[in-house]
Amino acid sequence: MDMIYLDNAASSWPKPPEVAEAVKQAIEDAGANPGRGGHQLARKAEGIIDRTRGQLAELFDVRDAQHLFFCFHTTHAINQAIKGLLDEGDHLIITGWEHNAVARPAFWLQENSGVDVSIVDVGSGKDWVSAIKKEVRSNTRLIVTIHGSNVTGECLPVLEIGEYARQRGIYYLVDAAQTAGLYPYQLDRMPIDLLAFPGHKGLFGPQGTGGLYTAPHVPLRPLFQGGTGTKSEDVKQPLNRPTGFESGTPNTPGIAGLGKGVEFLLKVGIDSVYEHEKALTKRLWEGLREIEEVQLVTDQLPQLPVVSLNIRGVDANEVAVILDQHYQMAVRAGFHCAALRHRGLKTDAGAVRVSPGYFNTEDEIDQFVGAIREISRAYSL
Amino acid sequence: MDMIYLDNAASSWPKPPEVAEAVKQAIEDAGANPGRGGHQLARKAEGIIDRTRGQLAELFDVRDAQHLFFCFHTTHAINQAIKGLLDEGDHLIITGWEHNAVARPAFWLQENSGVDVSIVDVGSGKDWVSAIKKEVRSNTRLIVTIHGSNVTGECLPVLEIGEYARQRGIYYLVDAAQTAGLYPYQLDRMPIDLLAFPGHKGLFGPQGTGGLYTAPHVPLRPLFQGGTGTKSEDVKQPLNRPTGFESGTPNTPGIAGLGKGVEFLLKVGIDSVYEHEKALTKRLWEGLREIEEVQLVTDQLPQLPVVSLNIRGVDANEVAVILDQHYQMAVRAGFHCAALRHRGLKTDAGAVRVSPGYFNTEDEIDQFVGAIREISRAYSL
Repeated sequence: MDMIYLDNAASSWPKPPEVAEAVKQAIEDAGANPGRGGHQLARKAEGIIDRTRGQLAELFDVRDAQHLFFCFHTTHAINQAIKGLLDEGDHLIITGWEHNAVARPAFWLQENSGVDVSIVDVGSGKDWVSAIKKEVRSNTRLIVTIHGSNVTGECLPVLEIGEYARQRGIYYLVDAAQTAGLYPYQLDRMPIDLLAFPGHKGLFGPQGTGGLYTAPHVPLRPLFQGGTGTKSEDVKQPLNRPTGFESGTPNTPGIAGLGKGVEFLLKVGIDSVYEHEKALTKRLWEGLREIEEVQLVTDQLPQLPVVSLNIRGVDANEVAVILDQHYQMAVRAGFHCAALRHRGLKTDAGAVRVSPGYFNTEDEIDQFVGAIREISRAYSL
Repeated sequence: MDMIYLDNAASSWPKPPEVAEAVKQAIEDAGANPGRGGHQLARKAEGIIDRTRGQLAELFDVRDAQHLFFCFHTTHAINQAIKGLLDEGDHLIITGWEHNAVARPAFWLQENSGVDVSIVDVGSGKDWVSAIKKEVRSNTRLIVTIHGSNVTGECLPVLEIGEYARQRGIYYLVDAAQTAGLYPYQLDRMPIDLLAFPGHKGLFGPQGTGGLYTAPHVPLRPLFQGGTGTKSEDVKQPLNRPTGFESGTPNTPGIAGLGKGVEFLLKVGIDSVYEHEKALTKRLWEGLREIEEVQLVTDQLPQLPVVSLNIRGVDANEVAVILDQHYQMAVRAGFHCAALRHRGLKTDAGAVRVSPGYFNTEDEIDQFVGAIREISRAYSL
């Protein structure tokens, strides 16, 4: 029996076949350091990186691709953004929906670097801006919010929050871990100052890729210093974009794969991908809602392809293990690295998260709902 | 005409064919997040990472593999080490041989975080320990040295320096960018507290890989905080090794390739690789020494497969371009990201660096020497 993969919120799988092929080819044909030598292999590597950066600029509607920095994962991008901006005495606002990729660096800075952190949470309510307003102080320098929750699939009103932040002269960082590749970002025209995104989820790239968009007016410090292939005779880190923020030998093979992933996405179209995943999510949600023993974590159909559930009286981990071993179905159980969100939801024992992707079919969703029905019945006997 | 690749000090190329194959296969078969879900794809990814970590432990003779953290490049590993250890008021000693991957974070900390930096340099002399001793202060917390210079191929006496550092209770970080895969490290038995190494040079892995060894007694702070797949219900960063130092989705495909690279290296044997590259370097060195117009950057045959030269009166970049375009030979010209070293060598205009690798042949070396002879003659007419 083939596996049914429903863990796309962690990493999308499978990838379009050309992604792995491009990675392999880059290792075989472009095995040199881009921008660090003028020879033909180095130029090939540089071409791969420039092309992928250009494709990301197209995807995110950014005129000047130099403001997109390659990172190794969203966590790297978020750490770079937060620590590249905040100083001792600054105030940071995050929400109760944040992944630990935001919450942990925030609390780390609070404990170690004299940055004050406030958490805003209105549950699944609407009035985020009012709640944020109440927390803003004279020293509030940055607001960070996830765009779409990796636990519930719900979205935050990033444009409203960004509009407010811009009025107040506060920087706004959006964690697009779940939304990049699904939401039509137009970064040159939206009130988003920084956007951290993964390469290996909605952009169909391999693991080991991701990026950070930094608007031209944001005065970021690099998190790493080191070789940049530029101004090598100077021990001072150059602050040019993007090179000053990409010290060290880049993951050229991974970036080659990411380029093919983004190419695929641009060809199919974000709208088509979103429509397909939305339809699958609706089918999943409606199917699960009919099973009496199933407790869905949210009351409304989520905007993103993420549905979390529990079967009454059954440990979430146990459900995941049964799905994996008996049904060959891959989902995730636990807290999904979102400590704050789980506190907000009072799902102390975690939940089973089901996240369909572009390559899932209606039939797979039906099979999955059928499996949950069987498990529920078995436990309610 | 096939290309002759002599830029292995930047990235080794080609790789053993199984490296690219393993990367491709990991993208196709193990596309999930290790340790973040119990399903079969996640377990496959976890297996890849554990296996590679074990192979690195074998290579570096480390009993407990948990003290080897995967990084994305040596620059990442060095930044993690230096910034994970030093606090305001600490004193750091580096040498004049350092790559910008060490020099730039050091001077960054001096400028921004109240860390004092001293540079020790005895040129190509022998008495490094005495020179270091003179710089040690009561607040000296860390010594960082490159093991082998990426400009000259010369080595520093890391065991002597480490022995002295250990006596004085100072931590010692070795930058093994040029030596990992060539020098027989026995980290459990050597006075090296931290070792930063690339995956894509002497270990034959793909770009986007590297690592940091941290001895059990070193109290390191993580450079990134974020999801670790462990203690997800806690917003405090866990400090477990290695997970607390590997936040974010790892580069599983890259790590799969690195595993195959290390496997190849262990199979061939470090000694055989070193002997082969040493023989090529000797041949290269002796051939170049006979060309009157060639100025070699060092007087002695270098210990590592790195030879830097200039052709009298010809710009290094021009030599590299001619080699690339006319001879299809890949070398590197410039400062090689080693500002300090070039100051020490007074090669203000940079140099042409030639770095043979395991897959080069004697015939290729002879062709290269012939090309340099032709270029020298053409310019001396």
